Amino acid sequence: MNFLEERIARDGIVKEGNVLKVDSFLNHQMDIRLFDEIGAEFKRRFADAGINKILTIEASGIGIACIAARHFDVPVVFAKKSKSINIEGEVYVAEVESFTHKCKNNVIVSKKFLNPEDRVLIIDDFLANGCALQGLISIVNESGATVEGIGIAIEKGFQPGGRIIRNLGYHLESLAIVDSMNAEDGTISFREQ
Amino acid sequence: MNFLEERIARDGIVKEGNVLKVDSFLNHQMDIRLFDEIGAEFKRRFADAGINKILTIEASGIGIACIAARHFDVPVVFAKKSKSINIEGEVYVAEVESFTHKCKNNVIVSKKFLNPEDRVLIIDDFLANGCALQGLISIVNESGATVEGIGIAIEKGFQPGGRIIRNLGYHLESLAIVDSMNAEDGTISFREQ
Repeated sequence: MNFLEERIARDGIVKEGNVLKVDSFLNHQMDIRLFDEIGAEFKRRFADAGINKILTIEASGIGIACIAARHFDVPVVFAKKSKSINIEGEVYVAEVESFTHKCKNNVIVSKKFLNPEDRVLIIDDFLANGCALQGLISIVNESGATVEGIGIAIEKGFQPGGRIIRNLGYHLESLAIVDSMNAEDGTISFREQ
Repeated sequence: MNFLEERIARDGIVKEGNVLKVDSFLNHQMDIRLFDEIGAEFKRRFADAGINKILTIEASGIGIACIAARHFDVPVVFAKKSKSINIEGEVYVAEVESFTHKCKNNVIVSKKFLNPEDRVLIIDDFLANGCALQGLISIVNESGATVEGIGIAIEKGFQPGGRIIRNLGYHLESLAIVDSMNAEDGTISFREQ
């Protein structure tokens, strides 16, 4: 097991309905030393990708993206969730469905902050069905920039998001891929990588 | 002018209605080198406060809080905006009014992540009317933890939030306090500190 898998096995909590709670270190309370290890690992895996910008989505992707950005020495842009499109100026928009909150949001990025010369690393904390990620990819493509890589902390390997994104040919790296979880005994199985 | 005031003077855009747009470096696209300078300055100003946890609020506070947390070597907790209170387990709740979005949100923090022994530094990107900040203070007080300091990047000094918080006796440090702005010629006046 790598450092993140070990942490998930130790502090992650499995709940009924394939819910994995990692709120003590990843997406409510945030362990910044762990984030720094995650950032260093992303830098190692995307060292040759010529990344000049990191794109993430509010809210829980922002912390990992910012700490990772130090390792790449690039700015971060975060996509904003917006029920209405009332941000000033022109924006790229994608519709993203949230399974957790059972609603649809527009996700927007100002056109000022993505350009055709940008080589983008997309970072997020979780990948499950992949709706948020598909929205971010769509926004990058619309801008003329290039998705050079996608870095995810935890992928739920039993949901289709990761497979779809890899089938589309994107360079997706998930530091931990959960293949199955058992809410009764709390065990978590990780995919060999 | 300090480094942040210089950046605001150079890249901030003043709009009608006392709107200061800093989305090219602070709250949409994020300049991580600048955030690192902000974090180092917070560490300098709160060096003796015995901080063991940083509290912020989604979304745009998270980036600064995480980068600052490296300087303190402490975890970050971010308060979540929630229309309904359906987070699992027990949470601290405060109602926060947003002037930008003209709505009220509940802001929640899991009780697991704030304890009476916590010495908390609250960090946010903006302080204007202070509603979000008052909600965060209320949550810390309810938990029995102590607000040892409040670090803000940009305070709108012509709105009452900062004065109220200082009158209450909190140690509030704003790295840039805007005393007035002129949308016609784009000038920004900072308070001498």
